[in-house]
Amino acid sequence: MTDPSMRHFSSAAINELEKQTRTNLINCLSGYKGANLVGTTDGKRDNLAIISSVFHVGAHPPLQGMLLRPHTVPRQTLENIRETGVYTINAVSAGWTDKAHQTSARYDEHTSEFDATGLTPLKEDGFAAPFVAQSPLRMAMAAEEITTLQCNKTVLVIGRVLDIYVMEGATGEDGQLDLEKMNLACISGLDTYHRAEPIARYAYAKPDKPVTLAGKNA
Amino acid sequence: MTDPSMRHFSSAAINELEKQTRTNLINCLSGYKGANLVGTTDGKRDNLAIISSVFHVGAHPPLQGMLLRPHTVPRQTLENIRETGVYTINAVSAGWTDKAHQTSARYDEHTSEFDATGLTPLKEDGFAAPFVAQSPLRMAMAAEEITTLQCNKTVLVIGRVLDIYVMEGATGEDGQLDLEKMNLACISGLDTYHRAEPIARYAYAKPDKPVTLAGKNA
Repeated sequence: MTDPSMRHFSSAAINELEKQTRTNLINCLSGYKGANLVGTTDGKRDNLAIISSVFHVGAHPPLQGMLLRPHTVPRQTLENIRETGVYTINAVSAGWTDKAHQTSARYDEHTSEFDATGLTPLKEDGFAAPFVAQSPLRMAMAAEEITTLQCNKTVLVIGRVLDIYVMEGATGEDGQLDLEKMNLACISGLDTYHRAEPIARYAYAKPDKPVTLAGKNA
Repeated sequence: MTDPSMRHFSSAAINELEKQTRTNLINCLSGYKGANLVGTTDGKRDNLAIISSVFHVGAHPPLQGMLLRPHTVPRQTLENIRETGVYTINAVSAGWTDKAHQTSARYDEHTSEFDATGLTPLKEDGFAAPFVAQSPLRMAMAAEEITTLQCNKTVLVIGRVLDIYVMEGATGEDGQLDLEKMNLACISGLDTYHRAEPIARYAYAKPDKPVTLAGKNA
């Protein structure tokens, strides 16, 4: 049945879209995406790249994944991770999305994105990769599994969370982080940044009960 | 150097957290996540599961990935995808996050989450898997690559986007979708839902120019 309130793009229609139009459309399909900066080093120069594909892989052990395209800007990021085995993930705040976005420019290999954007590199306890001092949520990561996807040769990097640094006052007693308090940004498509506000936190869902707000059905 | 405005969780401290606290904390680390319902069928019963790990894999060809845990609720989702080869992805709106969350309850195998939650299944042009009629952004997907990750045995499903159905008026001329117009929700952690509003859309970043808003540096 055809729904007249919806616009339909068939496979053929998607194929016929102008390349950048298609890129924009497909990049929007997964909805809001986390905005994160990945920090790496080759020992001489620190590198920083905005990545919108960081995703949760597991909590026991604590693992995060991300996708990198070898032929685009994060190439140095991938080379540095392969070489050093470590990287950082730094959440982007809504107050400096302009600086975060600017890290996606194709700087030459002699330029650090930290210098170019004015974001501040921070080293912690001898960990090789640089953190972003402005970020309210930072993780030290060790690469655990690096796989090239057959379907399009992008590279999946899964890393283990070694250390977490989170803004004081943003961690609930039950471990939940208050992303709004940290003023975190999110991304749609390639280039659009958003801030978010809470709708609701729900209790663990059970088959024999209607949905309830967290804390109301204990 | 230690930053006194930040709380530090070392690897040892993460390990020592109570299990649910650690689960909450680690699930929050990647920031805001897209809220999507995945629709599948075994031919007799339609299944619907909320998934917060859908991520963009590529635009040429159009590919989306997602992670499924075989031992939790989306098990039927994975079995149905393996059996039929197809599924749908349906973006969740801020107006019915309660219904979307309720799909995460462990219903028995005779109960469809559509019946249990009041969301409406919609079939399109003989495509086997059910769409969610309430969703303003729906995709028909064909499984392309199913891989078990070594690190924790979760399953990565990558699918090709076959058809896109998007709310009329939400697609820009350049292909960009207006997620705010569609009132899409996003998720933090396991159970907290948010709505978002735009901060800025930036132009393609160039090394020799400061960041500019989209449309201002053409």
